[in-house]
Amino acid sequence: MNFHYPNGKKFSPIASSAGKKPSGKKVSYSNRGMTLEEDINETNQYYLANGIAVIHKKPTPVQIVDVHYPQRSAAVIKEAYFKQPSTTDYNGLYKGRYIDFEAKETRNKTSFPLQNLHAHQITHMQQVDEQDGIAFILIRFASTEEIFFMKFNELYKYWERMEQGGRKSITKEEIEKDGVKLALGLYPRIDYLKTVQSLYY
Amino acid sequence: MNFHYPNGKKFSPIASSAGKKPSGKKVSYSNRGMTLEEDINETNQYYLANGIAVIHKKPTPVQIVDVHYPQRSAAVIKEAYFKQPSTTDYNGLYKGRYIDFEAKETRNKTSFPLQNLHAHQITHMQQVDEQDGIAFILIRFASTEEIFFMKFNELYKYWERMEQGGRKSITKEEIEKDGVKLALGLYPRIDYLKTVQSLYY
Repeated sequence: MNFHYPNGKKFSPIASSAGKKPSGKKVSYSNRGMTLEEDINETNQYYLANGIAVIHKKPTPVQIVDVHYPQRSAAVIKEAYFKQPSTTDYNGLYKGRYIDFEAKETRNKTSFPLQNLHAHQITHMQQVDEQDGIAFILIRFASTEEIFFMKFNELYKYWERMEQGGRKSITKEEIEKDGVKLALGLYPRIDYLKTVQSLYY
Repeated sequence: MNFHYPNGKKFSPIASSAGKKPSGKKVSYSNRGMTLEEDINETNQYYLANGIAVIHKKPTPVQIVDVHYPQRSAAVIKEAYFKQPSTTDYNGLYKGRYIDFEAKETRNKTSFPLQNLHAHQITHMQQVDEQDGIAFILIRFASTEEIFFMKFNELYKYWERMEQGGRKSITKEEIEKDGVKLALGLYPRIDYLKTVQSLYY
């Protein structure tokens, strides 16, 4: 395996996915070197191992252009491009109900820029909401390491405000008012289903 | 874009995914050149466009090893490998309930070989079943172009038979007895939710 970074940029699979972080670099997280995505994945593994829920991250969508088939070894993808995801990153099942969410991190201290979300992700969450699924977003402020849970319908208020010419972000005050701040733990790390349970069941 | 097939093999994204077909070649389908995956994707688009359900195929999981970042153009993945999926290919939401399924095609005329499924896909469907989700499989016989719907618990009977040393396939008679043959249409092409509706609601 050869690693070539002609631009001096490090490759991070997370930075390339929909869960892109502002700079593409890993954000230190409670000095554990964990990213938001890693914490959510561990949380989902905890839920799965304990029979609580079945929630997985979707693979990063990739457009494959060229594949080599060396003799006696695995197929190698030699040319491919990142595609924009058409849905959110996480979905699954909790107590019979469909769960669907996106997780985003910002280095911004006072607001969450809505450019972190794509219009088709909003459309997707809207479709989920209409079909009686549970759609929400997790927002992490890197500076304070706080994570907020926001229901889709709250998020959508601010999305609509932007579409009507209003500000292109949600202020932290608004997130504190309309979202729920998650307590962080060890097992699981980010117990977002506790909030799902209290808000939807 | 360069296409190199040193082995004389053609690249097919479907053949490389979990929805692998026995030969890796496209099977003619009602002379329309459509694969099972394409028909299911079109069906899902129909469901989505008509507000019936929100069901998507998960992207093919890929392990990315090397990415180049050319100046002023999109990141290019230069080395990556296909990973075995840890879940099924399709999931989503229908009338508030979680839907999860795998679709497989066989050229075998008299039975469906269970080697088309991975043990962890069975485990995943079992987890979905335990959380009150709707898990099933679609089996297509390429020779007759018939598609059968089989609930996970029926499929699991045959999986257990294999694990207990029994036959490594489900005979077509068993599939006809325990599954439901789907009528094929134009819009949608494979109306599997009609069967979901009659079996689970």
